[in-house]
Amino acid sequence: MVEICTIGGYSEVGKNMTAIKSGDEVVILDMGINVAKLINFEEEGNDRSTLDARKLINIGAIPDDTVIKEWGSKVKGIICSHCHLDHVAAIPYLADKYNCPVLGTPFTIEVIKTLLNDEKFKIRNKLVAVTVNSSYKLGNNFEIEFINITHSTLQTVMIAVHVKEGTIIYANDFKFDNYPVLGKKPNYERLRALGKENVLALIVDSLYSNSERKTPSEKVARELLKDVMLGTENQDSLIIVTTFASHLARIRSIIDFGKLLNRKIVLMGRSMFKYSDAAERIGLVNYSKEAEILAYARLMKKKLADIEKNRSKYVIVCTGNQGEPESVLSKMADGRLPLNFKQEDHIIFACKTIPEPLNIKNRAILEEKLKQKKVRIFSDIHVSGHCGREDLRDLIKMVRPQYIFPAHGDKHKLMGLAELAVEMGYSLGKTIHVMEDGKKITI
Amino acid sequence: MVEICTIGGYSEVGKNMTAIKSGDEVVILDMGINVAKLINFEEEGNDRSTLDARKLINIGAIPDDTVIKEWGSKVKGIICSHCHLDHVAAIPYLADKYNCPVLGTPFTIEVIKTLLNDEKFKIRNKLVAVTVNSSYKLGNNFEIEFINITHSTLQTVMIAVHVKEGTIIYANDFKFDNYPVLGKKPNYERLRALGKENVLALIVDSLYSNSERKTPSEKVARELLKDVMLGTENQDSLIIVTTFASHLARIRSIIDFGKLLNRKIVLMGRSMFKYSDAAERIGLVNYSKEAEILAYARLMKKKLADIEKNRSKYVIVCTGNQGEPESVLSKMADGRLPLNFKQEDHIIFACKTIPEPLNIKNRAILEEKLKQKKVRIFSDIHVSGHCGREDLRDLIKMVRPQYIFPAHGDKHKLMGLAELAVEMGYSLGKTIHVMEDGKKITI
Amino acid sequence: MVEICTIGGYSEVGKNMTAIKSGDEVVILDMGINVAKLINFEEEGNDRSTLDARKLINIGAIPDDTVIKEWGSKVKGIICSHCHLDHVAAIPYLADKYNCPVLGTPFTIEVIKTLLNDEKFKIRNKLVAVTVNSSYKLGNNFEIEFINITHSTLQTVMIAVHVKEGTIIYANDFKFDNYPVLGKKPNYERLRALGKENVLALIVDSLYSNSERKTPSEKVARELLKDVMLGTENQDSLIIVTTFASHLARIRSIIDFGKLLNRKIVLMGRSMFKYSDAAERIGLVNYSKEAEILAYARLMKKKLADIEKNRSKYVIVCTGNQGEPESVLSKMADGRLPLNFKQEDHIIFACKTIPEPLNIKNRAILEEKLKQKKVRIFSDIHVSGHCGREDLRDLIKMVRPQYIFPAHGDKHKLMGLAELAVEMGYSLGKTIHVMEDGKKITI
Amino acid sequence: MVEICTIGGYSEVGKNMTAIKSGDEVVILDMGINVAKLINFEEEGNDRSTLDARKLINIGAIPDDTVIKEWGSKVKGIICSHCHLDHVAAIPYLADKYNCPVLGTPFTIEVIKTLLNDEKFKIRNKLVAVTVNSSYKLGNNFEIEFINITHSTLQTVMIAVHVKEGTIIYANDFKFDNYPVLGKKPNYERLRALGKENVLALIVDSLYSNSERKTPSEKVARELLKDVMLGTENQDSLIIVTTFASHLARIRSIIDFGKLLNRKIVLMGRSMFKYSDAAERIGLVNYSKEAEILAYARLMKKKLADIEKNRSKYVIVCTGNQGEPESVLSKMADGRLPLNFKQEDHIIFACKTIPEPLNIKNRAILEEKLKQKKVRIFSDIHVSGHCGREDLRDLIKMVRPQYIFPAHGDKHKLMGLAELAVEMGYSLGKTIHVMEDGKKITI
Repeated sequence: MVEICTIGGYSEVGKNMTAIKSGDEVVILDMGINVAKLINFEEEGNDRSTLDARKLINIGAIPDDTVIKEWGSKVKGIICSHCHLDHVAAIPYLADKYNCPVLGTPFTIEVIKTLLNDEKFKIRNKLVAVTVNSSYKLGNNFEIEFINITHSTLQTVMIAVHVKEGTIIYANDFKFDNYPVLGKKPNYERLRALGKENVLALIVDSLYSNSERKTPSEKVARELLKDVMLGTENQDSLIIVTTFASHLARIRSIIDFGKLLNRKIVLMGRSMFKYSDAAERIGLVNYSKEAEILAYARLMKKKLADIEKNRSKYVIVCTGNQGEPESVLSKMADGRLPLNFKQEDHIIFACKTIPEPLNIKNRAILEEKLKQKKVRIFSDIHVSGHCGREDLRDLIKMVRPQYIFPAHGDKHKLMGLAELAVEMGYSLGKTIHVMEDGKKITI
Repeated sequence: MVEICTIGGYSEVGKNMTAIKSGDEVVILDMGINVAKLINFEEEGNDRSTLDARKLINIGAIPDDTVIKEWGSKVKGIICSHCHLDHVAAIPYLADKYNCPVLGTPFTIEVIKTLLNDEKFKIRNKLVAVTVNSSYKLGNNFEIEFINITHSTLQTVMIAVHVKEGTIIYANDFKFDNYPVLGKKPNYERLRALGKENVLALIVDSLYSNSERKTPSEKVARELLKDVMLGTENQDSLIIVTTFASHLARIRSIIDFGKLLNRKIVLMGRSMFKYSDAAERIGLVNYSKEAEILAYARLMKKKLADIEKNRSKYVIVCTGNQGEPESVLSKMADGRLPLNFKQEDHIIFACKTIPEPLNIKNRAILEEKLKQKKVRIFSDIHVSGHCGREDLRDLIKMVRPQYIFPAHGDKHKLMGLAELAVEMGYSLGKTIHVMEDGKKITI
Repeated sequence: MVEICTIGGYSEVGKNMTAIKSGDEVVILDMGINVAKLINFEEEGNDRSTLDARKLINIGAIPDDTVIKEWGSKVKGIICSHCHLDHVAAIPYLADKYNCPVLGTPFTIEVIKTLLNDEKFKIRNKLVAVTVNSSYKLGNNFEIEFINITHSTLQTVMIAVHVKEGTIIYANDFKFDNYPVLGKKPNYERLRALGKENVLALIVDSLYSNSERKTPSEKVARELLKDVMLGTENQDSLIIVTTFASHLARIRSIIDFGKLLNRKIVLMGRSMFKYSDAAERIGLVNYSKEAEILAYARLMKKKLADIEKNRSKYVIVCTGNQGEPESVLSKMADGRLPLNFKQEDHIIFACKTIPEPLNIKNRAILEEKLKQKKVRIFSDIHVSGHCGREDLRDLIKMVRPQYIFPAHGDKHKLMGLAELAVEMGYSLGKTIHVMEDGKKITI
Repeated sequence: MVEICTIGGYSEVGKNMTAIKSGDEVVILDMGINVAKLINFEEEGNDRSTLDARKLINIGAIPDDTVIKEWGSKVKGIICSHCHLDHVAAIPYLADKYNCPVLGTPFTIEVIKTLLNDEKFKIRNKLVAVTVNSSYKLGNNFEIEFINITHSTLQTVMIAVHVKEGTIIYANDFKFDNYPVLGKKPNYERLRALGKENVLALIVDSLYSNSERKTPSEKVARELLKDVMLGTENQDSLIIVTTFASHLARIRSIIDFGKLLNRKIVLMGRSMFKYSDAAERIGLVNYSKEAEILAYARLMKKKLADIEKNRSKYVIVCTGNQGEPESVLSKMADGRLPLNFKQEDHIIFACKTIPEPLNIKNRAILEEKLKQKKVRIFSDIHVSGHCGREDLRDLIKMVRPQYIFPAHGDKHKLMGLAELAVEMGYSLGKTIHVMEDGKKITI
């Protein structure tokens, strides 16, 4: 008898958290925030430093873990699938309640350390880095296996929770990318092997369950980027690329094409520094050898004054892909940094706008400012890090779970995955369970 | 004084034809049909064989060249930019009126020969194959230059018409593809060189003038195709790919990935045969060495009976990407060919649906039939062969024409290009002329 | 113990048919066709007259009633909710198998008679007209109640099937219209009364379950029509309105505004005649007093010759709202009728294009022809006859069923209704059953 | 010789301002703000009170009238078409520079007074109320005629500027509504009469030039509202309607249906008070007799405590239709006012979201908060106050101008109107002039 509690991320996209109980022991999978809600709350004039967990739960910014209050002492570990904020950023607020370690891949753990450091939070939990494609024993009942998978950041894993009743696979945030620009290919062999054993349940990413496609490889994003960086009339233009700071493979491509253009590459922005620094600390990349990385305004300003005079010799990679008002790109557009855009500077958005009202607004405002400067804009130079319906079909074929729990979405997305599962022979309310936040089920 | 007559393709997408008069001599650029109108007319029960030019003009299927009646004897040449039907397929009906040669690249000329042969048409015009990136003198006034460019078929050219008043560049149907899978890259050097001389006018493709992007390379389509051919659970599935028969680069990619899968490749369908045969006759490809190419039903049926038994050993490349009722794929879906689809056969549409009512209907009907068979469908594995707004901006920057004539579109598309040109400093009604079919203008 | 068989309309929009078994008796609800499939099949060159039931079942044009073969002798009645073809037009092909009467409201029965007459079909079943808001006993187990409801045609009913286990409400094709232009308002009192008794199951229209709105009243369509008929510069223009022939309320409005314009009204087209004639036979309308109604080409031609000369004195109401190639409007556009469109004639589409590939194609082709004539086109002067999500919520609140069966849609539409029901406290797989065509369930 | 300066509203939607020079005299038409830019600027932490005209011009919030600097002393009048902020709200910042009166209809003038009062601005200009459908002489050269027209607020006019060279009609922000809920119908007679005289130029609203429709009457919005207020299961629900405070006709309808429900009506919010008070001062409405109107928080709170206990006895009409964070509705959703939403309270948005990033974000955030409270939401119960393409066609037919100047839009919208004008025989760059902000042209 296994009990699953769908704490967060089953009624909305964001603040993912799930708990699994076997015998009298529990593990927690992911502990994330709802980024938009946190920022909106701050924008309404509230100060982050005054926010404690209870308040954050009330405004819906972090998962409401009071639903597992009576499981508290039984929790043997908090296991993180990857380093994105909607999966790890509630750790500073919630982890301390549980007397257990936090597990993640080495890169994930480095990012968590940075988070804790930034916010000056202290938690008692031990941080344990577990290698990709290896296992770790927790308590008497759990063996936790990290299966390498691809996503829009490094060292992402599917988590196989082995208990005596069978295996639960937690597959939030993944794509099947056979040509990743950085990192290994998905570990299909292991998934297929599990499929031949006893997979009790699959908890699985529904974000694009309604998109009838296979998500293209990061290689495609690389080709799109090559097209706009190497194939346009940009000889005399400054080139600025903005992307997700945690998307180190994308930054790899930008650096590569910048070099082919014989330009110097400068990474700008605090989070640009943080993620590449975290990756450098564990030897995943070495971007500081190939590019200047400037985290702080003073240094950026000095550099920009130089770039202004030599605009055809530089590629700037900076924060601001979602139009964040305090990002480097927004500050440039506002004239708050010493760089004047010229008519034909190229601004490349190597990203898509995350469909949150806040991001939509910020991006639209940023783009309007950029258009007034008459720069050239190349948008959506991007492919997603999340699986489409056809990838989901392939995953289900590989691991053949007894039960399916759609996750990582609102009801409509969860129902989309349920629709696919019905097509594949599963049965609503029997072998497919469409849950809500804060519910428990025994299988 | 140069006179331009916008005969066809300026009030709709289709039946492209333009005439240019310098002194007392005229050249015609392209002579195409409106494919949808021709087919709709046939579907309404009319028989193609009874159609003469006058009737076809009346139903809007071919350009109304009576507007240049008084120029008839002055025409020194008919020059085709590439082999697509909306650019060459009115030649069998209209060319014979003009006592002059038909010029095109070798591949274009081979396709025209096939067209004439098919329809049992005889025309008196000499067919002249002119090499890409070379020039040809016509009459006393014209020097015709073929500038290599990329598109969704082979040996496409921009046509530079040099007259004493300057150069008119005819740039219909192109993209700027720096990584073409087959054929050479665009001849940017020549375009830039022309830009430094006297480009009087640019007649230019408006199809996607309202799409604010650079069109991605065919390389991207190749990567998308690789993802779905090599990265899905298709070990036991029959794989069928359908694409445009004239898109020989796309077929190249399909063959390549089919081989990597250790499968035999079979091309099926009459037009699949025709275009690859035309390309083979002049040594551009040699697909018949790498694949079986079956044009006729009898041979296809025999082969399909074998494929049925060995579905994991074949990749079929066939006609039907627009859902044409008499295509190979539609016949399979109808059960008119000896192949029974199985639940998880993979059907890959390496194309997009051309936004014509006829195609939309046919594709929707085909897809519904396929869904009933429960096969897996991968759609839109494709990138366009037409330039977006940012490519158009680059072209205008390169060639710096005095006058711009938006072409290849309805009024809305032409106005989209005009909008771009205004942004770049051109002036509506003065240096930008938005024309209609059947109008003349002197510049 | 009640058994429900979802014979047709649960895997697609079209060919509705449901059977309910109580004890050893059965009733059938609706017996419709898939209009598009029938027409497509004919368009592919097949002749309707050669089609028997088996063939029509094979091509998916009529419901596959072989799934209730063993219930055949137990069927006590075939009950039709309203006169639309997707609810009644399979009667000529299937009803004869069952030794029982066909029940419907008087208008529904008149339309069925016309259908049988047209196709020269003979069936042995007795046709029984049952008044709206009354009941009828069938066999030993069934009491059938017709509850007046609003829709886009007249005398539509929700069917309450009373059996000893409770009541099953069959609510396909309805809206809640409190200001119907013709006919009575919905019988809310009865629905609320049933809600206080024992409603076992609700079989319910999912067509727009994903549209988060209340469907507006026909009154709104009337106001929209008034705007374009009375509020545009049409003094010298011919006015042509096309709409659904069975939508007699819409025709009522057209006639009313035509009269206000002091114009003569002429209804043209065979189906225009049939539906208004059926309604006149039972005294629902008397349009032939207010308008000329011309069913046949010869009379139309004569009249059109007169209209041509007095275009500002007429309003034509004709068939062709879906662009049907043999409709009056299409023939006019083709020049097959003696009326030449002038630049500013007004064509009003008092309808929306039904989202079937066939209709989309036909309408697009028709509109293109009309645009070439430069007439003015007013589209989408329409409101739907189907309920949105908020109407569905109201219905469920009123009748409080134990079980909900989403109907009249493909899986995605059915799942949309399931989503709503979950929101209202129902449970997937337990109290909501998402069925497919050809399945049975016992409740 | 007439000179036109397109000062604002020709490169974006917002901050409308146009100047017309005849002889050595000038009139200014409208003086509006870009609402979104002003608010965004404030949201970025800037304080409105510190903003002077120069700063507001720099951030693009008010028109840059420095382009008519040398005309300053020649300005004889500032004439406002109606009371919306994008047409009048720059008066407090800019009018004082010009030694001339401000003209408007009585309601427009009342709103301007309120604006000046609110912001504690003092301007020297005389405010002159001119009756609808009358004329006013300005300087030696101008006769200004106010032609009654319909829009989404009261007393809107088209402005006919009569000079010796002919008449310029300024037709920004209008619809042709033949069934206005409040106010008179459009003065078609006068427009037609002008069309027979000499209309030199038409400056005209392009906002929906790309929408191929006639905009429906406010009567349609009234019917939509009736449907959701009178035709849903709301017996026990609190009903809250939010709409534009200046849309007094819409508020008329809400009050009417509220009364039919036997409920008390309470208007809440500062701007709700301001606009209805302005209208009451000049006797246009008398809402304070029919409803309570509460502008301030203290009174609202007291009332809400009562409403909480008697929710089925009230209709609340409040601010917040665009999700403004400080509006009454947003405060309710945040729990900042003493009203707790219950599961099935009805929230009716009698508006559409203005497609500005700020509004889109605010509305989305508000709706998410409302959905969490599980209230029922009815959106888009609205029709636009702006003309569609078919209304524009009718206007051009009526007034037959020599020159057309598309206004009130970005380039794409202006080009849409140009497209229509081309269709009607006008010529790009000759009789149609697509201008930008800050340009002058002589006709």
